[in-house]
Amino acid sequence: MVLRRPARSRFELRAITRTDIVRVMAHLTVSVEYGLHCLLWLAGSDKPLSSRDLADLQGISHSFVAKIFPKLERAGIVHASGGVRGGYLLARVPEDISVLQVVDAIEGRKPLFDCQEIRGRCAIFGGAPPQWATGGVCAIHLVMLRAEKAMRDTLASQSLADIGQNVAKKAPSHFSSDVEDWITTRLSGRLGKPSTSSSGEEVLS
Amino acid sequence: MVLRRPARSRFELRAITRTDIVRVMAHLTVSVEYGLHCLLWLAGSDKPLSSRDLADLQGISHSFVAKIFPKLERAGIVHASGGVRGGYLLARVPEDISVLQVVDAIEGRKPLFDCQEIRGRCAIFGGAPPQWATGGVCAIHLVMLRAEKAMRDTLASQSLADIGQNVAKKAPSHFSSDVEDWITTRLSGRLGKPSTSSSGEEVLS
Repeated sequence: MVLRRPARSRFELRAITRTDIVRVMAHLTVSVEYGLHCLLWLAGSDKPLSSRDLADLQGISHSFVAKIFPKLERAGIVHASGGVRGGYLLARVPEDISVLQVVDAIEGRKPLFDCQEIRGRCAIFGGAPPQWATGGVCAIHLVMLRAEKAMRDTLASQSLADIGQNVAKKAPSHFSSDVEDWITTRLSGRLGKPSTSSSGEEVLS
Repeated sequence: MVLRRPARSRFELRAITRTDIVRVMAHLTVSVEYGLHCLLWLAGSDKPLSSRDLADLQGISHSFVAKIFPKLERAGIVHASGGVRGGYLLARVPEDISVLQVVDAIEGRKPLFDCQEIRGRCAIFGGAPPQWATGGVCAIHLVMLRAEKAMRDTLASQSLADIGQNVAKKAPSHFSSDVEDWITTRLSGRLGKPSTSSSGEEVLS
């Protein structure tokens, strides 16, 4: 008896390609990375910074940051003020902002596992699954929910202040004053350009 | 000063739609769900079952199951045999097959968070980030790695046997014999169709 394996068809190739694309997209996306980096700058600043200030300071796309910050504002993580001196400030101290809160604000409550409830489709049930088979949480889903909880608990246990302290341990003593100088120069430039600041758009956009 | 928010443009609408699509795709996909359900049937069977048997028993797509099982075989989770009585059997006892092993076999080592290392792009560094800024693991990435470890530890702590026991607690006493009868009838049908079994394809495909 010959053990045959199905030949790779064009359809199968396409399906594998789709899988690879899914793999590239991590569960916690680059928006979370951008958001957390920018929030760290706000944690060290007593001056409001616009999304453009934050994007330029971090060296990332302004349009990307401009999409993230309204979500952080809606979640009560940052406070926005308008005007020539306006921008974003943290709405709470960094110790009270957990990584989980930032992740949920940016990503929404994206499940780790999206149970399709296939348990009721078993051939034995003939299309009419009994209550015992579909009641409560599926045993497989339950394991995934536990794994998700472990992940979320870890993210909840870490605050913006914890991350900031880890960065500060590595940075030389002059770094915070370098950042402060950059911000001061930036804000002075903003004040020196009344044509840009008159609309207030530059401040938050 | 007026606080202006950017109007919703067509571009922004498209970006939001893309985000929603990403949200639908959970980190642990339907392949894991299908794979685990099918492995549970193998955990309760001493007879080899083909991917078609498993798909029909679970009421799911055969082509989907046929893509999953070669991955489980390569990972040493199932053993494949050819021939008219062939099919898949678990390669180890269900107590020795963790959910994590199944997830990794099916999904590959997909990261929870794909760090883009943007820390080196800070404007202060002027394009030449110092060693302290880029050495070691990024403080944000570290938090994500801890969260991923917590998730993986939970998946590693649960075996196929644990899930099977949870299902067995809910099922009535006649369920396992119903399944056994279904399998016996199925395998008898296979033996009674020499034209199908002669190629051996039906068994593993």
